[in-house]
Amino acid sequence: MRNLTQDNITQAVIARFADTPDPRLKEIMTSLVQHLHAFAREVRLTEAEWMRGIDFLTRAGHITDDKRQEFILLSDTLGLSMLTVAMNNDKPAGCTEATVFGPFYVEGAPEYDLGADVANGAAGIPCQVRGHVRGLGGEPVPGAQLNVWQADAEGTYDVQRPGLAQPQGRGVLRTGPEGEYHFKSILAESYPIPHDGPVGDMLEATRRHPWRPAHLHFMIEAPGYETLITHVFRNGDAYLDSDAVFGVRQSLIADWVRQPDGSYLVEYDFVLNPVSEGA
Amino acid sequence: MRNLTQDNITQAVIARFADTPDPRLKEIMTSLVQHLHAFAREVRLTEAEWMRGIDFLTRAGHITDDKRQEFILLSDTLGLSMLTVAMNNDKPAGCTEATVFGPFYVEGAPEYDLGADVANGAAGIPCQVRGHVRGLGGEPVPGAQLNVWQADAEGTYDVQRPGLAQPQGRGVLRTGPEGEYHFKSILAESYPIPHDGPVGDMLEATRRHPWRPAHLHFMIEAPGYETLITHVFRNGDAYLDSDAVFGVRQSLIADWVRQPDGSYLVEYDFVLNPVSEGA
Repeated sequence: MRNLTQDNITQAVIARFADTPDPRLKEIMTSLVQHLHAFAREVRLTEAEWMRGIDFLTRAGHITDDKRQEFILLSDTLGLSMLTVAMNNDKPAGCTEATVFGPFYVEGAPEYDLGADVANGAAGIPCQVRGHVRGLGGEPVPGAQLNVWQADAEGTYDVQRPGLAQPQGRGVLRTGPEGEYHFKSILAESYPIPHDGPVGDMLEATRRHPWRPAHLHFMIEAPGYETLITHVFRNGDAYLDSDAVFGVRQSLIADWVRQPDGSYLVEYDFVLNPVSEGA
Repeated sequence: MRNLTQDNITQAVIARFADTPDPRLKEIMTSLVQHLHAFAREVRLTEAEWMRGIDFLTRAGHITDDKRQEFILLSDTLGLSMLTVAMNNDKPAGCTEATVFGPFYVEGAPEYDLGADVANGAAGIPCQVRGHVRGLGGEPVPGAQLNVWQADAEGTYDVQRPGLAQPQGRGVLRTGPEGEYHFKSILAESYPIPHDGPVGDMLEATRRHPWRPAHLHFMIEAPGYETLITHVFRNGDAYLDSDAVFGVRQSLIADWVRQPDGSYLVEYDFVLNPVSEGA
Protein backbone atom coordinates (compact mmCIF):
# COMPACT_ATOMS: atom_id res chain seq x y z
CA MET A 1 0.00 0.00 0.00
CA ARG A 2 3.02 2.32 0.19
CA ASN A 3 4.25 2.08 -3.37
CA LEU A 4 1.19 1.88 -5.55
CA THR A 5 1.88 2.49 -9.21
CA GLN A 6 -0.33 2.96 -12.24
CA ASP A 7 0.05 -0.79 -12.72
CA ASN A 8 -1.03 -2.09 -9.33
CA ILE A 9 -3.33 0.61 -7.91
CA THR A 10 -6.50 -0.86 -9.42
CA GLN A 11 -6.07 -4.16 -7.59
CA ALA A 12 -5.23 -2.27 -4.37
CA VAL A 13 -8.44 -0.22 -4.60
CA ILE A 14 -10.53 -3.31 -5.33
CA ALA A 15 -8.95 -5.10 -2.35
CA ARG A 16 -10.18 -2.25 -0.13
CA PHE A 17 -13.76 -3.32 -0.90
CA ALA A 18 -13.09 -6.88 0.34
CA ASP A 19 -15.14 -6.50 3.52
CA THR A 20 -18.28 -5.06 1.89
CA PRO A 21 -21.12 -7.02 3.52
CA ASP A 22 -23.59 -6.64 0.63
CA PRO A 23 -22.29 -8.87 -2.19
CA ARG A 24 -24.14 -6.88 -4.85
CA LEU A 25 -22.59 -3.60 -3.68
CA LYS A 26 -19.18 -5.26 -3.67
CA GLU A 27 -19.74 -6.48 -7.23
CA ILE A 28 -20.81 -3.02 -8.40
CA MET A 29 -17.95 -1.15 -6.72
CA THR A 30 -15.38 -3.65 -8.03
CA SER A 31 -16.65 -3.36 -11.59
CA LEU A 32 -16.96 0.44 -11.34
CA VAL A 33 -13.35 0.84 -10.19
CA GLN A 34 -12.07 -1.49 -12.93
CA HIS A 35 -13.89 0.31 -15.71
CA LEU A 36 -13.20 3.81 -14.36
CA HIS A 37 -9.49 3.05 -14.15
CA ALA A 38 -9.51 1.35 -17.57
CA PHE A 39 -10.99 4.53 -19.05
CA ALA A 40 -8.37 6.77 -17.42
CA ARG A 41 -5.60 4.42 -18.52
CA GLU A 42 -6.86 4.05 -22.08
CA VAL A 43 -6.93 7.80 -22.73
CA ARG A 44 -3.97 8.51 -20.42
CA LEU A 45 -6.06 11.14 -18.67
CA THR A 46 -4.05 14.27 -17.86
CA GLU A 47 -4.32 16.12 -14.57
CA ALA A 48 -5.87 19.12 -16.35
CA GLU A 49 -8.50 16.86 -17.96
CA TRP A 50 -9.19 15.24 -14.58
CA MET A 51 -9.79 18.73 -13.16
CA ARG A 52 -12.18 19.54 -16.04
CA GLY A 53 -14.09 16.38 -15.18
CA ILE A 54 -14.33 17.42 -11.52
CA ASP A 55 -15.50 20.86 -12.63
CA PHE A 56 -18.08 19.36 -15.02
CA LEU A 57 -19.61 17.22 -12.25
CA THR A 58 -19.56 20.17 -9.84
CA ARG A 59 -21.46 22.36 -12.30
CA ALA A 60 -23.91 19.53 -13.00
CA GLY A 61 -24.52 19.24 -9.26
CA HIS A 62 -25.06 22.93 -8.78
CA ILE A 63 -27.57 23.33 -11.64
CA THR A 64 -29.55 20.32 -10.38
CA ASP A 65 -32.53 21.08 -8.14
CA ASP A 66 -36.06 19.78 -7.67
CA LYS A 67 -36.99 21.05 -11.15
CA ARG A 68 -33.81 20.25 -13.07
CA GLN A 69 -31.85 16.98 -13.17
CA GLU A 70 -28.57 17.42 -15.01
CA PHE A 71 -27.23 13.98 -14.03
CA ILE A 72 -30.21 12.27 -15.70
CA LEU A 73 -29.62 14.43 -18.78
CA LEU A 74 -25.98 13.34 -18.73
CA SER A 75 -26.92 9.67 -18.42
CA ASP A 76 -29.53 10.11 -21.17
CA THR A 77 -27.17 11.82 -23.63
CA LEU A 78 -24.44 9.21 -23.04
CA GLY A 79 -26.91 6.42 -23.79
CA LEU A 80 -26.57 4.94 -20.30
CA SER A 81 -30.27 5.44 -19.52
CA MET A 82 -31.47 3.67 -22.66
CA LEU A 83 -28.94 0.87 -22.15
CA THR A 84 -30.23 0.36 -18.62
CA VAL A 85 -33.84 0.39 -19.82
CA ALA A 86 -33.04 -2.09 -22.60
CA MET A 87 -31.28 -4.50 -20.24
CA ASN A 88 -34.12 -4.46 -17.74
CA ASN A 89 -37.10 -4.58 -20.07
CA ASP A 90 -36.52 -7.57 -22.26
CA LYS A 91 -40.23 -8.29 -22.62
CA PRO A 92 -41.89 -11.03 -24.68
CA ALA A 93 -42.80 -10.18 -28.27
CA GLY A 94 -46.13 -8.40 -28.40
CA CYS A 95 -45.57 -6.31 -25.28
CA THR A 96 -45.20 -2.55 -25.62
CA GLU A 97 -41.51 -1.61 -25.47
CA ALA A 98 -40.13 0.58 -22.71
CA THR A 99 -38.01 3.68 -23.17
CA VAL A 100 -36.24 6.28 -21.05
CA PHE A 101 -37.93 7.80 -18.02
CA GLY A 102 -36.47 11.27 -18.59
CA PRO A 103 -36.03 14.01 -16.00
CA PHE A 104 -39.54 15.56 -16.08
CA TYR A 105 -41.76 13.06 -14.29
CA VAL A 106 -43.39 14.48 -11.14
CA GLU A 107 -44.97 12.38 -8.41
CA GLY A 108 -48.48 13.26 -7.34
CA ALA A 109 -49.74 14.70 -10.62
CA PRO A 110 -53.44 15.69 -10.59
CA GLU A 111 -56.01 12.93 -11.09
CA TYR A 112 -58.44 13.27 -13.97
CA ASP A 113 -61.54 11.43 -15.15
CA LEU A 114 -61.44 9.79 -18.57
CA GLY A 115 -62.14 12.42 -21.19
CA ALA A 116 -60.71 15.31 -19.18
CA ASP A 117 -58.25 17.86 -20.56
CA VAL A 118 -54.88 17.22 -18.94
CA ALA A 119 -53.32 20.21 -20.74
CA ASN A 120 -54.97 22.30 -18.02
CA GLY A 121 -54.12 25.53 -19.82
CA ALA A 122 -50.80 24.55 -21.43
CA ALA A 123 -50.31 26.26 -24.81
CA GLY A 124 -50.76 24.10 -27.90
CA ILE A 125 -53.06 22.76 -30.59
CA PRO A 126 -55.82 20.58 -29.09
CA CYS A 127 -55.28 16.86 -29.37
CA GLN A 128 -57.32 13.79 -28.44
CA VAL A 129 -55.45 10.75 -27.17
CA ARG A 130 -57.12 7.36 -26.87
CA GLY A 131 -56.59 3.63 -26.92
CA HIS A 132 -56.67 0.52 -24.76
CA VAL A 133 -54.47 -1.11 -22.19
CA ARG A 134 -54.36 -4.87 -22.57
CA GLY A 135 -52.38 -7.79 -21.20
CA LEU A 136 -50.15 -9.98 -23.33
CA GLY A 137 -53.01 -12.45 -23.82
CA GLY A 138 -55.23 -9.70 -25.23
CA GLU A 139 -57.28 -9.35 -22.05
CA PRO A 140 -58.42 -5.81 -21.19
CA VAL A 141 -56.81 -4.24 -18.11
CA PRO A 142 -59.47 -2.15 -16.38
CA GLY A 143 -58.44 0.22 -13.60
CA ALA A 144 -54.86 0.55 -14.83
CA GLN A 145 -53.26 3.78 -13.65
CA LEU A 146 -51.91 5.93 -16.49
CA ASN A 147 -49.48 8.71 -15.71
CA VAL A 148 -49.11 10.95 -18.75
CA TRP A 149 -46.82 13.97 -19.15
CA GLN A 150 -45.74 16.10 -22.08
CA ALA A 151 -44.18 19.38 -23.20
CA ASP A 152 -46.23 22.30 -24.47
CA ALA A 153 -46.11 24.04 -27.87
CA GLU A 154 -42.91 25.85 -26.82
CA GLY A 155 -41.24 22.55 -25.97
CA THR A 156 -41.22 23.08 -22.21
CA TYR A 157 -42.65 20.96 -19.44
CA ASP A 158 -44.65 22.68 -16.70
CA VAL A 159 -41.79 22.27 -14.22
CA GLN A 160 -39.63 24.36 -16.56
CA ARG A 161 -42.15 27.22 -16.56
CA PRO A 162 -41.82 29.13 -13.29
CA GLY A 163 -44.83 30.59 -11.52
CA LEU A 164 -47.54 28.14 -12.61
CA ALA A 165 -50.32 27.79 -10.05
CA GLN A 166 -51.12 24.21 -11.17
CA PRO A 167 -49.47 21.36 -13.07
CA GLN A 168 -50.04 21.55 -16.83
CA GLY A 169 -49.73 18.82 -19.43
CA ARG A 170 -49.55 16.02 -16.89
CA GLY A 171 -52.11 13.91 -15.10
CA VAL A 172 -53.16 10.54 -13.75
CA LEU A 173 -56.11 8.60 -15.27
CA ARG A 174 -57.56 5.13 -14.84
CA THR A 175 -58.67 2.86 -17.65
CA GLY A 176 -62.38 1.97 -17.94
CA PRO A 177 -64.06 -1.49 -17.81
CA GLU A 178 -62.73 -2.53 -21.24
CA GLY A 179 -59.23 -1.19 -20.53
CA GLU A 180 -60.03 1.89 -22.57
CA TYR A 181 -58.57 5.34 -21.98
CA HIS A 182 -59.13 8.71 -23.62
CA PHE A 183 -58.18 12.22 -22.70
CA LYS A 184 -57.69 15.67 -24.19
CA SER A 185 -54.33 17.37 -24.30
CA ILE A 186 -52.23 19.32 -26.79
CA LEU A 187 -50.22 18.37 -29.84
CA ALA A 188 -46.78 16.99 -28.95
CA GLU A 189 -43.92 18.94 -30.55
CA SER A 190 -40.20 18.25 -30.81
CA TYR A 191 -38.08 20.17 -28.31
CA PRO A 192 -34.47 20.54 -27.18
CA ILE A 193 -33.46 19.06 -23.84
CA PRO A 194 -32.26 21.77 -21.40
CA HIS A 195 -28.89 22.77 -22.85
CA ASP A 196 -27.87 25.83 -20.85
CA GLY A 197 -25.79 23.73 -18.44
CA PRO A 198 -22.72 21.49 -18.62
CA VAL A 199 -24.55 18.78 -20.63
CA GLY A 200 -25.43 21.46 -23.19
CA ASP A 201 -21.77 22.50 -23.26
CA MET A 202 -20.80 18.87 -23.93
CA LEU A 203 -23.34 18.60 -26.76
CA GLU A 204 -22.11 21.84 -28.33
CA ALA A 205 -18.42 20.91 -28.03
CA THR A 206 -19.16 17.60 -29.77
CA ARG A 207 -21.46 19.15 -32.40
CA ARG A 208 -24.48 17.19 -31.21
CA HIS A 209 -27.93 18.75 -31.35
CA PRO A 210 -30.11 18.67 -28.21
CA TRP A 211 -33.44 17.83 -29.89
CA ARG A 212 -35.91 15.11 -29.05
CA PRO A 213 -38.67 14.04 -31.45
CA ALA A 214 -42.23 14.89 -30.35
CA HIS A 215 -43.64 12.39 -27.86
CA LEU A 216 -46.03 11.74 -24.99
CA HIS A 217 -44.71 10.11 -21.82
CA PHE A 218 -46.64 7.27 -20.22
CA MET A 219 -46.16 5.29 -17.04
CA ILE A 220 -48.78 2.53 -16.72
CA GLU A 221 -49.26 0.55 -13.53
CA ALA A 222 -51.70 -2.29 -12.91
CA PRO A 223 -51.74 -5.17 -10.38
CA GLY A 224 -50.40 -8.39 -11.90
CA TYR A 225 -48.43 -6.58 -14.62
CA GLU A 226 -44.96 -5.08 -14.88
CA THR A 227 -44.99 -1.29 -14.73
CA LEU A 228 -44.49 0.13 -18.21
CA ILE A 229 -42.51 3.37 -18.65
CA THR A 230 -42.54 4.48 -22.25
CA HIS A 231 -43.26 7.18 -24.85
CA VAL A 232 -45.51 7.37 -27.88
CA PHE A 233 -43.60 9.19 -30.64
CA ARG A 234 -45.15 11.31 -33.37
CA ASN A 235 -44.68 9.91 -36.86
CA GLY A 236 -42.99 12.25 -39.33
CA ASP A 237 -40.92 14.12 -36.76
CA ALA A 238 -37.57 15.32 -38.09
CA TYR A 239 -35.67 13.99 -35.06
CA LEU A 240 -36.93 10.40 -34.99
CA ASP A 241 -33.56 9.22 -36.32
CA SER A 242 -31.38 11.39 -34.13
CA ASP A 243 -33.08 11.58 -30.71
CA ALA A 244 -30.60 13.29 -28.36
CA VAL A 245 -31.28 10.61 -25.72
CA PHE A 246 -31.50 7.51 -27.96
CA GLY A 247 -35.06 6.67 -26.87
CA VAL A 248 -36.91 6.00 -30.16
CA ARG A 249 -38.41 2.58 -30.89
CA GLN A 250 -40.13 1.95 -34.23
CA SER A 251 -42.96 0.18 -32.40
CA LEU A 252 -43.65 3.31 -30.32
CA ILE A 253 -44.28 5.60 -33.31
CA ALA A 254 -47.91 6.53 -33.97
CA ASP A 255 -49.76 8.80 -36.40
CA TRP A 256 -51.09 12.07 -35.06
CA VAL A 257 -54.04 12.57 -37.44
CA ARG A 258 -55.23 16.08 -38.21
CA GLN A 259 -59.01 16.42 -37.86
CA PRO A 260 -61.37 18.66 -39.88
CA ASP A 261 -61.56 21.18 -37.04
CA GLY A 262 -57.74 21.55 -36.91
CA SER A 263 -57.29 19.46 -33.80
CA TYR A 264 -55.39 16.17 -33.75
CA LEU A 265 -56.18 12.59 -32.81
CA VAL A 266 -53.69 9.91 -31.82
CA GLU A 267 -54.61 6.34 -30.98
CA TYR A 268 -52.26 3.91 -29.28
CA ASP A 269 -52.84 0.58 -27.57
CA PHE A 270 -50.51 -0.58 -24.82
CA VAL A 271 -49.76 -4.22 -24.05
CA LEU A 272 -48.50 -4.99 -20.54
CA ASN A 273 -46.27 -7.86 -19.53
CA PRO A 274 -47.78 -10.07 -16.80
CA VAL A 275 -45.65 -10.37 -13.69
CA SER A 276 -43.96 -13.75 -13.90
CA GLU A 277 -44.68 -16.39 -11.27
CA GLY A 278 -42.66 -15.92 -8.15
CA ALA A 279 -41.52 -12.41 -9.16
CA MET B 1 -31.47 4.80 -34.67
CA ARG B 2 -35.05 3.58 -34.15
CA ASN B 3 -34.39 0.13 -32.79
CA LEU B 4 -31.35 0.38 -30.59
CA THR B 5 -30.81 -2.62 -28.36
CA GLN B 6 -28.46 -3.36 -25.51
CA ASP B 7 -26.19 -4.87 -28.15
CA ASN B 8 -25.92 -1.99 -30.60
CA ILE B 9 -26.57 1.14 -28.53
CA THR B 10 -22.91 1.67 -27.60
CA GLN B 11 -21.83 1.94 -31.24
CA ALA B 12 -24.78 4.26 -31.94
CA VAL B 13 -23.79 6.61 -29.11
CA ILE B 14 -20.15 6.63 -30.20
CA ALA B 15 -21.23 7.40 -33.78
CA ARG B 16 -23.00 10.50 -32.46
CA PHE B 17 -19.60 11.92 -31.48
CA ALA B 18 -18.29 11.56 -35.06
CA ASP B 19 -18.32 15.30 -35.80
CA THR B 20 -16.46 16.40 -32.66
CA PRO B 21 -13.89 18.91 -33.95
CA ASP B 22 -11.37 18.42 -31.12
CA PRO B 23 -9.81 14.97 -31.66
CA ARG B 24 -8.79 14.67 -28.02
CA LEU B 25 -12.35 15.35 -26.83
CA LYS B 26 -13.64 12.81 -29.35
CA GLU B 27 -11.15 10.24 -28.04
CA ILE B 28 -12.15 10.89 -24.43
CA MET B 29 -15.92 10.79 -25.05
CA THR B 30 -15.60 7.60 -27.12
CA SER B 31 -13.59 5.83 -24.43
CA LEU B 32 -15.86 7.13 -21.66
CA VAL B 33 -19.01 5.81 -23.35
CA GLN B 34 -17.40 2.42 -24.02
CA HIS B 35 -16.24 1.94 -20.45
CA LEU B 36 -19.41 3.36 -18.88
CA HIS B 37 -21.55 1.00 -20.94
CA ALA B 38 -19.18 -1.92 -20.29
CA PHE B 39 -19.62 -1.32 -16.55
CA ALA B 40 -23.42 -1.21 -16.77
CA ARG B 41 -23.43 -4.33 -18.93
CA GLU B 42 -21.01 -6.27 -16.75
CA VAL B 43 -23.07 -5.78 -13.58
CA ARG B 44 -26.40 -5.76 -15.46
CA LEU B 45 -27.28 -2.53 -13.71
CA THR B 46 -30.91 -2.42 -12.60
CA GLU B 47 -33.12 0.63 -12.97
CA ALA B 48 -33.27 1.01 -9.17
CA GLU B 49 -29.46 0.92 -8.97
CA TRP B 50 -29.23 3.46 -11.79
CA MET B 51 -31.55 5.73 -9.78
CA ARG B 52 -29.35 5.30 -6.69
CA GLY B 53 -26.37 6.36 -8.79
CA ILE B 54 -28.22 9.48 -9.98
CA ASP B 55 -29.17 10.24 -6.38
CA PHE B 56 -25.57 9.72 -5.18
CA LEU B 57 -24.23 12.21 -7.74
CA THR B 58 -27.00 14.67 -6.93
CA ARG B 59 -26.16 14.58 -3.22
CA ALA B 60 -22.46 14.92 -4.02
CA GLY B 61 -23.25 18.00 -6.10
CA HIS B 62 -25.37 19.58 -3.43
CA ILE B 63 -22.84 19.14 -0.59
CA THR B 64 -20.07 20.59 -2.79
CA ASP B 65 -19.35 24.29 -2.38
CA ASP B 66 -16.28 26.55 -2.29
CA LYS B 67 -15.16 24.84 0.95
CA ARG B 68 -16.13 21.24 0.25
CA GLN B 69 -15.35 19.16 -2.84
CA GLU B 70 -17.19 15.84 -2.70
CA PHE B 71 -16.32 14.88 -6.30
CA ILE B 72 -12.58 15.10 -5.52
CA LEU B 73 -13.20 12.97 -2.41
CA LEU B 74 -15.02 10.46 -4.61
CA SER B 75 -12.20 10.39 -7.14
CA ASP B 76 -9.66 10.09 -4.30
CA THR B 77 -11.44 7.21 -2.55
CA LEU B 78 -11.88 5.30 -5.82
CA GLY B 79 -8.17 5.62 -6.54
CA LEU B 80 -8.76 7.63 -9.72
CA SER B 81 -6.85 10.65 -8.42
CA MET B 82 -3.75 8.64 -7.51
CA LEU B 83 -3.90 6.74 -10.81
CA THR B 84 -4.01 10.06 -12.70
CA VAL B 85 -1.12 11.43 -10.64
CA ALA B 86 0.92 8.27 -11.22
CA MET B 87 0.34 8.32 -14.99
CA ASN B 88 1.33 11.97 -15.30
CA ASN B 89 4.32 12.06 -12.97
CA ASP B 90 6.60 9.34 -14.13
CA LYS B 91 9.73 11.21 -13.08
CA PRO B 92 13.34 10.04 -13.31
CA ALA B 93 14.76 8.17 -10.34
CA GLY B 94 15.97 10.58 -7.71
CA CYS B 95 13.11 13.07 -8.13
CA THR B 96 10.63 13.50 -5.30
CA GLU B 97 7.47 11.54 -6.07
CA ALA B 98 4.12 13.25 -6.52
CA THR B 99 0.90 12.34 -4.76
CA VAL B 100 -2.73 13.44 -4.68
CA PHE B 101 -3.67 17.11 -4.62
CA GLY B 102 -6.64 16.61 -2.31
CA PRO B 103 -9.60 18.93 -1.89
CA PHE B 104 -8.15 21.44 0.61
CA TYR B 105 -5.72 23.57 -1.40
CA VAL B 106 -6.69 27.24 -1.51
CA GLU B 107 -5.28 29.73 -3.98
CA GLY B 108 -3.85 32.95 -2.62
CA ALA B 109 -2.67 31.66 0.76
CA PRO B 110 -0.77 34.24 2.85
CA GLU B 111 2.89 34.80 2.06
CA TYR B 112 5.41 34.28 4.84
CA ASP B 113 9.13 34.91 5.29
CA LEU B 114 11.35 31.92 5.97
CA GLY B 115 11.18 31.05 9.65
CA ALA B 116 7.64 32.34 10.12
CA ASP B 117 4.86 30.40 11.85
CA VAL B 118 2.36 29.33 9.20
CA ALA B 119 0.08 27.75 11.83
CA ASN B 120 -1.12 31.30 12.49
CA GLY B 121 -3.07 30.22 15.56
CA ALA B 122 -4.14 26.71 14.49
CA ALA B 123 -4.27 24.33 17.45
CA GLY B 124 -1.47 21.79 17.77
CA ILE B 125 1.94 20.90 19.15
CA PRO B 126 4.64 23.21 17.75
CA CYS B 127 6.71 21.77 14.95
CA GLN B 128 9.69 22.99 12.93
CA VAL B 129 9.85 22.02 9.25
CA ARG B 130 13.03 22.44 7.21
CA GLY B 131 15.02 21.19 4.28
CA HIS B 132 16.23 22.06 0.81
CA VAL B 133 14.79 22.20 -2.67
CA ARG B 134 17.23 20.94 -5.28
CA GLY B 135 17.19 20.00 -8.93
CA LEU B 136 17.83 16.50 -10.19
CA GLY B 137 21.53 17.32 -10.69
CA GLY B 138 21.86 18.33 -7.03
CA GLU B 139 21.82 22.06 -7.79
CA PRO B 140 20.07 24.27 -5.23
CA VAL B 141 16.85 25.92 -6.39
CA PRO B 142 16.71 29.38 -4.80
CA GLY B 143 13.48 31.38 -4.98
CA ALA B 144 11.27 28.30 -5.42
CA GLN B 145 7.71 28.97 -4.29
CA LEU B 146 6.51 26.55 -1.62
CA ASN B 147 2.81 26.27 -0.93
CA VAL B 148 2.28 24.34 2.29
CA TRP B 149 -1.04 23.35 3.89
CA GLN B 150 -2.01 21.03 6.71
CA ALA B 151 -4.73 20.01 9.15
CA ASP B 152 -4.71 21.05 12.82
CA ALA B 153 -4.63 18.89 15.95
CA GLU B 154 -8.33 18.10 15.49
CA GLY B 155 -7.71 16.89 11.96
CA THR B 156 -9.47 19.77 10.24
CA TYR B 157 -8.18 22.23 7.66
CA ASP B 158 -8.90 25.92 8.15
CA VAL B 159 -11.54 25.89 5.38
CA GLN B 160 -13.45 23.30 7.43
CA ARG B 161 -13.53 25.58 10.49
CA PRO B 162 -16.15 28.26 9.94
CA GLY B 163 -15.67 31.80 11.16
CA LEU B 164 -11.88 32.10 10.97
CA ALA B 165 -10.69 35.65 10.32
CA GLN B 166 -7.50 34.44 8.61
CA PRO B 167 -6.13 31.30 6.95
CA GLN B 168 -4.46 28.91 9.40
CA GLY B 169 -2.00 26.12 8.72
CA ARG B 170 -1.31 27.22 5.16
CA GLY B 171 1.10 29.62 3.56
CA VAL B 172 3.44 30.48 0.72
CA LEU B 173 7.22 30.71 1.24
CA ARG B 174 10.26 31.10 -1.01
CA THR B 175 13.49 29.15 -0.70
CA GLY B 176 16.68 31.05 0.20
CA PRO B 177 19.96 31.36 -1.78
CA GLU B 178 20.97 27.75 -1.14
CA GLY B 179 17.49 26.39 -1.88
CA GLU B 180 16.84 26.13 1.85
CA TYR B 181 13.45 26.50 3.52
CA HIS B 182 12.33 26.45 7.12
CA PHE B 183 9.13 27.41 8.87
CA LYS B 184 7.19 26.81 12.06
CA SER B 185 3.86 25.04 12.12
CA ILE B 186 2.13 22.37 14.17
CA LEU B 187 2.48 18.62 14.40
CA ALA B 188 0.67 16.79 11.59
CA GLU B 189 -1.91 14.29 12.86
CA SER B 190 -3.92 11.60 11.10
CA TYR B 191 -7.50 12.60 10.33
CA PRO B 192 -10.61 11.27 8.62
CA ILE B 193 -11.62 12.75 5.28
CA PRO B 194 -15.04 14.46 5.47
CA HIS B 195 -17.43 11.53 5.76
CA ASP B 196 -20.80 13.12 6.53
CA GLY B 197 -21.79 13.08 2.83
CA PRO B 198 -22.40 10.48 0.13
CA VAL B 199 -18.72 9.48 -0.05
CA GLY B 200 -18.83 8.79 3.69
CA ASP B 201 -21.97 6.70 3.13
CA MET B 202 -20.11 4.72 0.46
CA LEU B 203 -17.15 4.14 2.80
CA GLU B 204 -19.44 3.00 5.61
CA ALA B 205 -21.48 0.68 3.37
CA THR B 206 -18.26 -0.95 2.16
CA ARG B 207 -16.69 -1.09 5.65
CA ARG B 208 -13.84 1.21 4.66
CA HIS B 209 -12.41 3.65 7.18
CA PRO B 210 -12.04 7.31 6.19
CA TRP B 211 -8.62 7.94 7.75
CA ARG B 212 -5.54 9.45 6.20
CA PRO B 213 -2.08 9.15 7.77
CA ALA B 214 -0.60 12.41 9.13
CA HIS B 215 1.03 14.52 6.42
CA LEU B 216 1.99 17.96 5.21
CA HIS B 217 0.93 19.09 1.74
CA PHE B 218 3.46 20.78 -0.52
CA MET B 219 3.17 22.36 -3.95
CA ILE B 220 6.58 23.56 -5.17
CA GLU B 221 6.96 25.75 -8.25
CA ALA B 222 10.18 27.04 -9.79
CA PRO B 223 11.07 28.22 -13.31
CA GLY B 224 12.75 25.49 -15.34
CA TYR B 225 11.28 22.69 -13.23
CA GLU B 226 8.06 20.69 -13.26
CA THR B 227 5.65 21.73 -10.54
CA LEU B 228 5.70 19.18 -7.73
CA ILE B 229 2.48 18.41 -5.83
CA THR B 230 3.15 16.04 -2.99
CA HIS B 231 2.91 15.23 0.73
CA VAL B 232 5.44 14.44 3.41
CA PHE B 233 4.02 11.66 5.59
CA ARG B 234 4.77 11.11 9.26
CA ASN B 235 6.61 7.90 10.01
CA GLY B 236 4.90 5.57 12.49
CA ASP B 237 1.37 6.64 11.66
CA ALA B 238 -1.17 3.83 12.03
CA TYR B 239 -2.76 4.57 8.65
CA LEU B 240 0.33 4.54 6.41
CA ASP B 241 -0.73 1.16 5.01
CA SER B 242 -4.41 1.96 4.58
CA ASP B 243 -4.63 5.61 3.46
CA ALA B 244 -8.28 6.21 2.47
CA VAL B 245 -7.11 7.93 -0.74
CA PHE B 246 -4.17 5.65 -1.69
CA GLY B 247 -1.62 8.49 -1.58
CA VAL B 248 1.29 7.05 0.45
CA ARG B 249 4.72 6.61 -1.11
CA GLN B 250 7.53 5.05 0.93
CA SER B 251 9.90 7.75 -0.33
CA LEU B 252 7.64 10.48 1.07
CA ILE B 253 7.73 9.22 4.67
CA ALA B 254 9.87 11.23 7.11
CA ASP B 255 10.61 11.14 10.85
CA TRP B 256 8.97 13.75 13.00
CA VAL B 257 11.54 13.96 15.84
CA ARG B 258 10.44 14.96 19.30
CA GLN B 259 12.66 17.69 20.80
CA PRO B 260 13.63 18.21 24.47
CA ASP B 261 11.11 21.06 24.79
CA GLY B 262 8.24 18.85 23.56
CA SER B 263 8.10 20.37 20.10
CA TYR B 264 8.84 18.41 16.92
CA LEU B 265 11.27 18.74 14.05
CA VAL B 266 10.91 17.26 10.57
CA GLU B 267 13.46 17.59 7.81
CA TYR B 268 12.77 16.77 4.17
CA ASP B 269 14.60 17.60 0.97
CA PHE B 270 12.73 17.90 -2.28
CA VAL B 271 14.21 17.11 -5.69
CA LEU B 272 12.53 18.74 -8.69
CA ASN B 273 12.44 17.38 -12.22
CA PRO B 274 13.85 19.81 -14.81
CA VAL B 275 11.41 20.71 -17.58
CA SER B 276 12.46 18.67 -20.59
CA GLU B 277 13.65 20.45 -23.74
CA GLY B 278 10.79 21.67 -25.87
CA ALA B 279 8.18 21.03 -23.14
